[in-house]
Amino acid sequence: MIRIGLIGSGFIGKAHALAYRTAPAVFELPADIRLEMLADVDAATAASAAERLGFARSTGDWRALVEDPDVDVVDITTPNHLHEEMALTAIAAGKHVYCEKPLAPSVEGARRMTAAAEAAGVKTLVGFNYLKNPITTLAREIIESGEIGEVFGYRGTHFEDYMLDPETLVNAWRLDPAAGDGVSGDLGSHAISMARYLVGDIVAVSADRHTITTERPAGEGATMRRIDVADALRATVRFAAGARGTLEASWMAPGRKHTITAEVWGSKGALTFDFERLNELQLYRTGQQRGREGFTTILAGPAHPDFAAFVPAPGHQLSFNDLKTIEVRDLVVGLSTPSAGCWPDFREAMEVQRVVDACIVSDRARAWVDLGDI
Amino acid sequence: MIRIGLIGSGFIGKAHALAYRTAPAVFELPADIRLEMLADVDAATAASAAERLGFARSTGDWRALVEDPDVDVVDITTPNHLHEEMALTAIAAGKHVYCEKPLAPSVEGARRMTAAAEAAGVKTLVGFNYLKNPITTLAREIIESGEIGEVFGYRGTHFEDYMLDPETLVNAWRLDPAAGDGVSGDLGSHAISMARYLVGDIVAVSADRHTITTERPAGEGATMRRIDVADALRATVRFAAGARGTLEASWMAPGRKHTITAEVWGSKGALTFDFERLNELQLYRTGQQRGREGFTTILAGPAHPDFAAFVPAPGHQLSFNDLKTIEVRDLVVGLSTPSAGCWPDFREAMEVQRVVDACIVSDRARAWVDLGDI
Amino acid sequence: MIRIGLIGSGFIGKAHALAYRTAPAVFELPADIRLEMLADVDAATAASAAERLGFARSTGDWRALVEDPDVDVVDITTPNHLHEEMALTAIAAGKHVYCEKPLAPSVEGARRMTAAAEAAGVKTLVGFNYLKNPITTLAREIIESGEIGEVFGYRGTHFEDYMLDPETLVNAWRLDPAAGDGVSGDLGSHAISMARYLVGDIVAVSADRHTITTERPAGEGATMRRIDVADALRATVRFAAGARGTLEASWMAPGRKHTITAEVWGSKGALTFDFERLNELQLYRTGQQRGREGFTTILAGPAHPDFAAFVPAPGHQLSFNDLKTIEVRDLVVGLSTPSAGCWPDFREAMEVQRVVDACIVSDRARAWVDLGDI
Amino acid sequence: MIRIGLIGSGFIGKAHALAYRTAPAVFELPADIRLEMLADVDAATAASAAERLGFARSTGDWRALVEDPDVDVVDITTPNHLHEEMALTAIAAGKHVYCEKPLAPSVEGARRMTAAAEAAGVKTLVGFNYLKNPITTLAREIIESGEIGEVFGYRGTHFEDYMLDPETLVNAWRLDPAAGDGVSGDLGSHAISMARYLVGDIVAVSADRHTITTERPAGEGATMRRIDVADALRATVRFAAGARGTLEASWMAPGRKHTITAEVWGSKGALTFDFERLNELQLYRTGQQRGREGFTTILAGPAHPDFAAFVPAPGHQLSFNDLKTIEVRDLVVGLSTPSAGCWPDFREAMEVQRVVDACIVSDRARAWVDLGDI
Repeated sequence: MIRIGLIGSGFIGKAHALAYRTAPAVFELPADIRLEMLADVDAATAASAAERLGFARSTGDWRALVEDPDVDVVDITTPNHLHEEMALTAIAAGKHVYCEKPLAPSVEGARRMTAAAEAAGVKTLVGFNYLKNPITTLAREIIESGEIGEVFGYRGTHFEDYMLDPETLVNAWRLDPAAGDGVSGDLGSHAISMARYLVGDIVAVSADRHTITTERPAGEGATMRRIDVADALRATVRFAAGARGTLEASWMAPGRKHTITAEVWGSKGALTFDFERLNELQLYRTGQQRGREGFTTILAGPAHPDFAAFVPAPGHQLSFNDLKTIEVRDLVVGLSTPSAGCWPDFREAMEVQRVVDACIVSDRARAWVDLGDI
Repeated sequence: MIRIGLIGSGFIGKAHALAYRTAPAVFELPADIRLEMLADVDAATAASAAERLGFARSTGDWRALVEDPDVDVVDITTPNHLHEEMALTAIAAGKHVYCEKPLAPSVEGARRMTAAAEAAGVKTLVGFNYLKNPITTLAREIIESGEIGEVFGYRGTHFEDYMLDPETLVNAWRLDPAAGDGVSGDLGSHAISMARYLVGDIVAVSADRHTITTERPAGEGATMRRIDVADALRATVRFAAGARGTLEASWMAPGRKHTITAEVWGSKGALTFDFERLNELQLYRTGQQRGREGFTTILAGPAHPDFAAFVPAPGHQLSFNDLKTIEVRDLVVGLSTPSAGCWPDFREAMEVQRVVDACIVSDRARAWVDLGDI
Repeated sequence: MIRIGLIGSGFIGKAHALAYRTAPAVFELPADIRLEMLADVDAATAASAAERLGFARSTGDWRALVEDPDVDVVDITTPNHLHEEMALTAIAAGKHVYCEKPLAPSVEGARRMTAAAEAAGVKTLVGFNYLKNPITTLAREIIESGEIGEVFGYRGTHFEDYMLDPETLVNAWRLDPAAGDGVSGDLGSHAISMARYLVGDIVAVSADRHTITTERPAGEGATMRRIDVADALRATVRFAAGARGTLEASWMAPGRKHTITAEVWGSKGALTFDFERLNELQLYRTGQQRGREGFTTILAGPAHPDFAAFVPAPGHQLSFNDLKTIEVRDLVVGLSTPSAGCWPDFREAMEVQRVVDACIVSDRARAWVDLGDI
Repeated sequence: MIRIGLIGSGFIGKAHALAYRTAPAVFELPADIRLEMLADVDAATAASAAERLGFARSTGDWRALVEDPDVDVVDITTPNHLHEEMALTAIAAGKHVYCEKPLAPSVEGARRMTAAAEAAGVKTLVGFNYLKNPITTLAREIIESGEIGEVFGYRGTHFEDYMLDPETLVNAWRLDPAAGDGVSGDLGSHAISMARYLVGDIVAVSADRHTITTERPAGEGATMRRIDVADALRATVRFAAGARGTLEASWMAPGRKHTITAEVWGSKGALTFDFERLNELQLYRTGQQRGREGFTTILAGPAHPDFAAFVPAPGHQLSFNDLKTIEVRDLVVGLSTPSAGCWPDFREAMEVQRVVDACIVSDRARAWVDLGDI
């Protein structure tokens, strides 16, 4: 029995809750999940969310949740700058920690969190849920199996447009430098984690940060405040294994609602996908019959990892929330396996954050930065 | 509190169970759901499924479930030819009935079921879940609002390929005439329900049934048996409101995994969608700026009915299972509203079945058939 | 040396002229082409067009062109109802005839034209240019080679929307029953010729004609006149070889500008294409590696018939006009080969027209019609 | 009368010849075109090509062509490193010059050519034919009109895969550093010219060149030679007007046959296109009706510049060769207009080359380079 303590019940907190409810019926889990306690900004909000989402208890004080002896896992879905204190407190209390991405606003915090978790021997999982898509897993399988040969090129993006309107504030905390460098950590970290998952360590970057809207209202009807965090991030990167590529992220990409793309080029072929159609992968292989060459559109189906548990028919489509359900399955399996941890853990998330920070340093230096220096 | 008795726990039974678990956390429901009892082919199977899916009790005897005083709704997910007896028994016991499609193998059974339900005053819901897709609901809104003008043309399809291999038996019961006319009822009924939802009553059909594989093995390693049911159904149809169109269904459409399409033509525009990309709708409107005309690709998002409850960000994609969750929401709301029923109910499913049967009659007569004669 | 006499210099006449100019430089032709004479509605129009398109002489009297001793081929690009007289006159003068589709407003005319040509021993070619697309040729090669197995299903369409606006007249002669049954001959004949090219003879049809706009202005600012010809045609069809399918055509398909599709289903796969992307073919084959199945998007390239002559690089795209250039190549090769004719010839076009007429008869009878009865 | 002297009759030379033949019939040109002379590597090759492509005379000595008094325009379609000598000789002879891209292997040559042309007062045109696509012109119109607001982001690519196979040599001269930096000049120059056309001057770049295949055979069955030129080029760039972006080019992009993309982001919308579907543009505009937002797929048609002259029906598709025909129209109009030149001229091509060279300098310096320093 794994007893969950969830902090936060907004967009992503609700997604976690849905995943906890669904995972045991979708997968055959090695342990039961108990929705033990939910914490939110105040007791009333927490109580209402707990009632709706099926948690047994609630609290307006996240510390009470963290300290609660009946909580095994502390699940942190709060804004980025709150992760560290919550995680360190949970680790100190001997709890496992499931934390949303990015792990911390900067690599220093991520390092502290990783060190604390590893010293305490607790298990950690960070919510880079796009890695859990069966299509993503398929992409990695294709790469690892050598089907597309030696990888030499990569193109990764994460584009949305929720910050496009200069008058509208969406998640104003995201514009606070204390929460990190805007889109660099918010969407950029997704693009970086995907690149690392598919092609491995990044060893050097040359990045350009762009603050497009330099003033935004501080709140509803409020005066304008100066904005310094990145609205767009562009980088050329080099991987340890020799591949080169580009990484791009923007939350001001007009019309792009959920464009998370990867394009991987190898000596024997290529693959690409776009999460606006998150159940599709395009695969090209050299050596096809002459005149029949082309990209094949593969629809996610029961032949692919983790799909059949949801629906045994190909083409029947998984959703954003389903990716979280797979992530929760990984959490439960990781916690239930003595010799293993969860993945991606704090250390991996720290490595992602190192790349984010390298981009910021590179932007300031107007030069390439080696990851070894971060 | 609505207490569910689920009969069947296969592909679609599991989908129902997932929906029951998810709906209360996604939506604010007017009543609680209790997973009271699960019946399957034998007690062990039922017990195992109940454990996994979260049902309180289980039974190997569906009659026990139907008669159980703590069951409010009998949810039937068994093969088509078993629906009628189960539903009539449930209705006789005063239960509401939530039944998978097609309602019955032929219109006679559907009529008996409808008459019984209406006489008993129980509420009914039939699982034409594709009507619950926010994209489908959007399509209907666009049509009803007059945005694409007066509708004069329709093209509807439902194509999959799970029966393509002549050696492989998938759901062998689907090939038994006792379960209905093969693809006509299985996928054809989906295409018909979609057409009725979007354009209204069908008044005449000219149909061609095609049994492509006329012999298949009776079972694993078994001798061949003659197959008479349709592998493909094609029809030209006329709607009461004046529109004309085509309806096509096949379970031997090579490469098509979940192709459910509708294309609606009106005097002021057109819309179309394909469930292999079930979060997209293409909309064309006349009167666009010259040189800027084209179909707009609309991604499902929080601006559309029922989407935001799952995820508040556009483009983040719903799944096949999510459609069942919306269907369960409709079940709970319908049962909780004294003056209303659920939809689509047995009567609507009977109307769908009338069109299926009209196609069969037309095929035999090699002529148009008026629905009034069915 | 082949000396061309072109009648008509509108949209399609100009396309012919461009093809004559281009073909000798694209292909290595067995004979030279000389643009000998151009006829149009009056001498001035003809002279102007001849000057622009590069014809040596011009005339306002098509009979003068047909009788001219220095014209070898009479190329007819006038409205449908004018084809027969012109062609018969040309044949009587011993000329070869290159005629636009549909050959005639009805099968009777097509029969007379075919009989006359065959009796006279002149060669004929009819402008079903969509059959000349390298992608179409590739489709046929794939089918004939057995790559997709035994063909059992077909879906063909030709949709445009140039008649959508009820106030606007485009090519008013197309609405005159004397020119044929509206879209049935105009676009329907394209769809039928494609179906015949890919799957072979059609032996039975059940068709529904739909006049959507029943009144249109007789001309600019003119009073309304009653319209009887088809705006849309829908048919279920049976092929001689056992396949079944649907054919659909409409010139009131909102937003569809050049949608010419074929979808061919066989026991080992499927292929499909859409001329709005006329350089692409989608191919699905059974027996692909599990988990890698899908449609492959093949871009037209030098590996395909007739492409390399235009551009030796794949993906570099051919145009509508390029299809006419291939057609003209076929004209020149056919005329230069003693033992061969051109294709599709009058006889093939007559077979297409028989299907058009069968659809009209079927619509009136509200029943299936065997082609043997037409 | 404009008398053309064409040097080279390979892939692109033939494309020029086709364009000369077609342009006068497609467009109403202000002057006639005469195919005066063709030069190739030897007299026989030249004679054969002249015969096939319709040139009046031929020569194996390009200098004879350049000096010929009956040649008005020298059209250079030879490998890159031959452009300069030919162009300078032609300019010295007072000829107008139409030269393929890239103008020269490096900016020094491009500067010399530009200076000579401007000093001599001859007119020049460089074959960046992708700028002539009606879809490209439409994109520029949309940007210039302010429809998508103030532009702040750009993503440009040109990907093909003709150098993917390490064993095969395609256009071996392209691998010779004397011809320029491999893909940087070959495809990179196209991507740069597109960026400049749509968003304006580039003022700084940070680039990464990648030689993926470091050894290739020196010829058929030959020994290997070391390769130093770029197989892939990636750059982050800044525009004078404030926008930022990325530019990428590769001739080893597996499966990409003709991927030339631009994505332009502005404060009021975005547009994007891909030349693998060269008749389509995707346009997104803010302020659309809520719930109807999305990218609109615009098919090239007669509402767009230069399309109607080819075919008066939308969706009927132009080809790669058609873009050259528009370019030739621009040549003839430019030469016929006393007060105007052609565009893009040598100066513009030199500006493109400055960006290419800046990328090379940046790659070596591992730092940003200001264009002012090139």
